[in-house]
Amino acid sequence: MSTTPSTETEALRARLDRTGTAAATAGVDALLVSPGSDLQYLIGIGGESFERLTCLVLPSAEFGGVPVLVVPKLEQPGYSGVPTAELGIEVATWVDGEDPYKLVTDLLRRSGDTPGRVAVADMMPALHAVQLRGALGDADQVLAGPVLRELRMRKDSTEIAALRRAGAAIDRVHARVGEWLRAGRTEAEVGADIAAAIVAEGHTRAAFVIVGSGPNGASPHHELSDRVIEAGDVVVVDIGGPIAEGYNSDSTRVYSVGEPRHEDVLSTYAVLKAAQQAAVDAVRPGVTAEAVDQAAREVIADAGFGEFFVHRTGHGIGLDVHEDPYIVSGNDLTLEAGMAFSIEPGIYLPGRWGARIEDIVVATEDGVESLNNQPHDLVVLPA
Amino acid sequence: MSTTPSTETEALRARLDRTGTAAATAGVDALLVSPGSDLQYLIGIGGESFERLTCLVLPSAEFGGVPVLVVPKLEQPGYSGVPTAELGIEVATWVDGEDPYKLVTDLLRRSGDTPGRVAVADMMPALHAVQLRGALGDADQVLAGPVLRELRMRKDSTEIAALRRAGAAIDRVHARVGEWLRAGRTEAEVGADIAAAIVAEGHTRAAFVIVGSGPNGASPHHELSDRVIEAGDVVVVDIGGPIAEGYNSDSTRVYSVGEPRHEDVLSTYAVLKAAQQAAVDAVRPGVTAEAVDQAAREVIADAGFGEFFVHRTGHGIGLDVHEDPYIVSGNDLTLEAGMAFSIEPGIYLPGRWGARIEDIVVATEDGVESLNNQPHDLVVLPA
Repeated sequence: MSTTPSTETEALRARLDRTGTAAATAGVDALLVSPGSDLQYLIGIGGESFERLTCLVLPSAEFGGVPVLVVPKLEQPGYSGVPTAELGIEVATWVDGEDPYKLVTDLLRRSGDTPGRVAVADMMPALHAVQLRGALGDADQVLAGPVLRELRMRKDSTEIAALRRAGAAIDRVHARVGEWLRAGRTEAEVGADIAAAIVAEGHTRAAFVIVGSGPNGASPHHELSDRVIEAGDVVVVDIGGPIAEGYNSDSTRVYSVGEPRHEDVLSTYAVLKAAQQAAVDAVRPGVTAEAVDQAAREVIADAGFGEFFVHRTGHGIGLDVHEDPYIVSGNDLTLEAGMAFSIEPGIYLPGRWGARIEDIVVATEDGVESLNNQPHDLVVLPA
Repeated sequence: MSTTPSTETEALRARLDRTGTAAATAGVDALLVSPGSDLQYLIGIGGESFERLTCLVLPSAEFGGVPVLVVPKLEQPGYSGVPTAELGIEVATWVDGEDPYKLVTDLLRRSGDTPGRVAVADMMPALHAVQLRGALGDADQVLAGPVLRELRMRKDSTEIAALRRAGAAIDRVHARVGEWLRAGRTEAEVGADIAAAIVAEGHTRAAFVIVGSGPNGASPHHELSDRVIEAGDVVVVDIGGPIAEGYNSDSTRVYSVGEPRHEDVLSTYAVLKAAQQAAVDAVRPGVTAEAVDQAAREVIADAGFGEFFVHRTGHGIGLDVHEDPYIVSGNDLTLEAGMAFSIEPGIYLPGRWGARIEDIVVATEDGVESLNNQPHDLVVLPA
C-alpha cells in the first residue's frame, strides 16, 4: 500500500534536500539542528526540550548519509507527527544514563568518514553545543545560521500560504479594535482584550501586543502601560503572533480616540501613509533591501520629518517574527520572489505622539503582494 | 547621601561574591552569563534577548576585576531595575555595527591578564557561544552550569521566602479546583479555568497545567485533552508557575468527581499518601537525595505497587521549575539546609487511573518545612 505524500511533506522534503546541498556548498559536513524555528522549518515540528539533547543530524549532500532525528525516548511522542518515513529520516532515541553526544558522533562516523566541519543551530543551548564540540574532537564547530538563513529567507508556496492566513487573522483583529479601545481604559486593559482576540481569530498565542497611546506612541519600543487613554489620543497598535503552522503575523495600525488632539496629526500622518506606500511600490525582484528602506525614508525626509523616523523600514518574517531579510540601510541584498518582510515606517514626535503603519508583503515574480489589507487611514474611533 | 541596600540587594551581592569564589575554585577565570534564570539569580533580572548579545561578564575572585553587564543600548531600559551601583556592576552598552564579542574580550583583557578558561551559561545560544569562543582565541570554553548549579541549589532566605509565597499561591488555586472540575466538562476547559486562577492567585503566568482524568491520569506526562470528564473519574491536577520574583510553584493533588468508580482507589491512595509522607519525614540535613527517593519507593513497593511508580520522587525548584537537586536513585548528594525540592511519588495503573501527591519542601537545620499545605486526602467533589 502506498500513500501520496501531502504538499506539506513534499515541501519539507525539498527543504531537507536544499539544506543538504547548501551545507555542502558552504563546506559544512553536517548540520546539528536543535529544537526551535530551524527544526520546525526542516521537519515541521519545532519541539521544545532543553536539558536533554534533541537534534536533527543532517549530513551534507557531499558528506552523505540520511538525516537522523536524535531524541530522548520520553520526548519521542512529541515528534509523532513528523512523516519520518516519507522524509527519509531515521529516528534514534536515547534514555537517561546514555550519552547522546557520543550517539551523534557515532552516527556521523558510521560511514567510516570523519566530519571535519560541523555546524550547530544558532539557538542550540551552549549546554549541548559545548558538549558536542567535545565529543566531535577535532571537527571545527561553526554556526548553521548562515546556511539556514539563506534558505529560510526564500519562502516556498506552502510558507507563503501560511503567512497569508496569518495576515488575514491579524487583519480580523485590527477590524475589531474599536470594540475595546476607548477613553478611560488603560493600555494594559485594551491590550488584554486584543490578546484574547488574537487567539480567538486564529493564532495559537499573542506573541506581542503594543498599545502606545498619546506620548507613549512616540516610543517605538513601548509595549503596554497603566496609562489611561484620553479623548484626543493617537494610539499605535502593533500586534501579532503565530498560527498553528508556526508562521507569524505582524501588523500595525494607528487609531485616534475621538478627533486627534494635536493639529499636526492629519498632515503628518498623510506623509507617513505616502512613505509606506512608496516603499511597498518599490518592492520587486532585483531591487535591493536598502532601496526599499530608502524609498520610505526619502518621502519622510523630504517632508522634513527625517529625524523622527528612528528605525529600519522592516524585517523578514516567517517562523520567527524577526528574521532575514532586514529592510535597512546598508543591506544590499537583492530581493527575490518569495521573500516576505514588513514595511513599517514610523514618525515619532517625542513627548507628543507617534505613528507607524505596518504590513507584511511578499515579493512576487512581477512585483509585490500585501498580506495585510486593512485600510491605511487613521482610524478615528468614538471617544 | 547614602541609602541602605535592601535585603534583596544584599542577597544578590552575596551571590555574586560566592559565584566569583566558586569560579576560582573550579579553575575558571570568568563566567559569561546570558539572559535566563542564571542571570536572574545573579542580578535579579533574567532578561530575554536573543540575537543581540547581553551577558554578565563575571571574573573569578582569583582573576579579579569587577562584573560588567554587557547589553545592547536599546535593551538597557529592561535592566534599569538592577541596583548596579550597590552591586558594584559596571554597565557596558553597544550599538548595532559594533562587535560585542570583541567588547567582552577587551573587558576580560583590560587588566593585562589573558583568561585561560572561560565558562558560558548553559542556556547561552550557540549563536553567541561560538562567536565568543572565536573572539577569545586560545581560552578554553567550558560550561558555567557546574559552578552555578552548586550555588543555586542552596537557597538563601530571600529565595525560600519567595518559594513560600509561590507555594501559598498555588495552594489557593488547589483550594478552588472544585469551582471548575465536574463531570461533562473537558480537561482542556477545566485547565483553562485553572490557568486563569493561577494568574489571579498571584503568579505571573501558568507555566504548566496538567488535568489527567480517568485513564489519562495513568500517564505521568499527560497534560490536557478534549476528554470529557465523567462521574467516578479520579483526576490528577498538577499545576504551577512563577511569581513576580521568578520563583516557581509546583503542586499536585488528586480529585474524584463523585465517588471513585474503581474499588481499589481508596486503599491504593492510602498507600500513596503514606509513601509521600514517608519521603517528607526522611528529609533532613545529612540524608542523601536517593535515600529520600527510597523512602517513598519502599512504601509503594511493600504494598505491591512498585512497578507502577515509574518516575523519580522529586526535583529541585527555584527560578527553574526543574533544577538540582534531583531526588532520584543514584544521586548520593547529601541534603543541606536550604535545598528546596518536590516530593511527588505516584502510582499509575495503565488504562485505569493514576494518582500523584506533590508538595515542595525545604530542608531546614533540624528537618523539613513543607511549602504546600493543602490536605493530602483524595478530594471527593460533587459529580
